Parts: sequence; C-alpha cells; structure tokens
Amino acid sequence: MSLTDFHPPYTAVIFTSTLAGNAPGYEEMAARMEMLVVDQPGYLGHESARTPGGLGITVSYWRTAQDAQAWKGNHEHLLAQSAGSRTWYSDYSVRIAVVERQYDRSTSPH
Amino acid sequence: MSLTDFHPPYTAVIFTSTLAGNAPGYEEMAARMEMLVVDQPGYLGHESARTPGGLGITVSYWRTAQDAQAWKGNHEHLLAQSAGSRTWYSDYSVRIAVVERQYDRSTSPH
Repeated sequence: MSLTDFHPPYTAVIFTSTLAGNAPGYEEMAARMEMLVVDQPGYLGHESARTPGGLGITVSYWRTAQDAQAWKGNHEHLLAQSAGSRTWYSDYSVRIAVVERQYDRSTSPH
Repeated sequence: MSLTDFHPPYTAVIFTSTLAGNAPGYEEMAARMEMLVVDQPGYLGHESARTPGGLGITVSYWRTAQDAQAWKGNHEHLLAQSAGSRTWYSDYSVRIAVVERQYDRSTSPH
C-alpha cells in the first residue's frame, strides 16, 4: 500500500493475535471482513501478516479515530469479534494510534 | 507481549516490508538487531509477523518518539537499514505513531 495514498495525521489500529490451534470458520470470517471493511466510511487501507503457527499482525488505517470506532461497532464485525474472542484467538490485543510521520524507500533520507 | 507492561501514550513504529527473492545475510542481520534493540533507552518491546513469501510487519514500541529516533540513528542499525534498502527489501515503509488507547482479551468490553 503506497504511502502517497494519504498523509498524516491519520489513525492506525494495530491488531495482534494468536490463533487457537483449531479455528473452524476463521478463514471465511476473515474473507468476509476484508470484503466489508473497504466500504466503511474513512477506511484508508490495511496490511496483514501472519507467521505460520505464530503471531498475526493486521494494521488498518482510518481517516479518524471515530471512523475506526464506527467499524468496531459494525454489526457483523461485532459478531466476528465475539466469535474471535470466544473461539479463534488464544490471545489478542488492539492498539489505537495516531500516525504522525511516515517514509518509505522513495522518501527516506537513506 | 502483555499490554499491562506499559500504558499510553507511547510511540509505535510500524515497519512493513517485502523481502526480495534472494536475501543473503538477512536472517543474521535480523537476529543481531533483535539483540541490540532490547538495550536501547526507552525500548518497550516489539512484535513481528511475516507471511511466507509475502508481507512482513514489525511494530516496535518506545517510551517517546525521541527514543525511537535514537534507535534509527544507531550506528549498526544504520548499516542494516542501508543494506536493507539496497539489497534485502523490494519494498518497505515506516510509520511513526502515538498509541492513545489499547485493550486486549482481558480488558475488552466484549
């Protein structure tokens, strides 16, 4: 995702999670959420990585903290969060942050 | 990494990267940086995930933006950044953010 798409300040939601050994329905839920999120007001983009058998990190980017909060309260997303907490994740944490500065290969002083 | 270890506000550095197909010396550098970073002033912790053949996300946490900046200027780390930019990464971006709020399984309202 290119940094030129949007400029600070904007909101980043850092979601880290560990999947429980057996997580039936997880992939379907994740795909459904990926489909839903792009239509949310203020959604800028997201990036996701998961080490097999290890930690997953998803960072989603929002125009404002209120936009991120509204997605947290989305009905289908609430159901997914509830199932995640009960079933899919053995552990997770969420951090809401304001991006103040950014650079990449093309803009770095190096 | 437990959220109870430290409390907002603090700084998060979100580093996303894609490895070039052939990245000799990358693992050694990464291990060396993991060893060095823990002794830096203001270092709070980090979390890392990489989808095989895909995106890697590392988020490091710092007491202040100045602490994060000082690590960016660390001599060995500068050499690693330079080699990363030239050789290991086909793409990367860095975002510096202030964590304002956080919750996890134990503190979530769900």
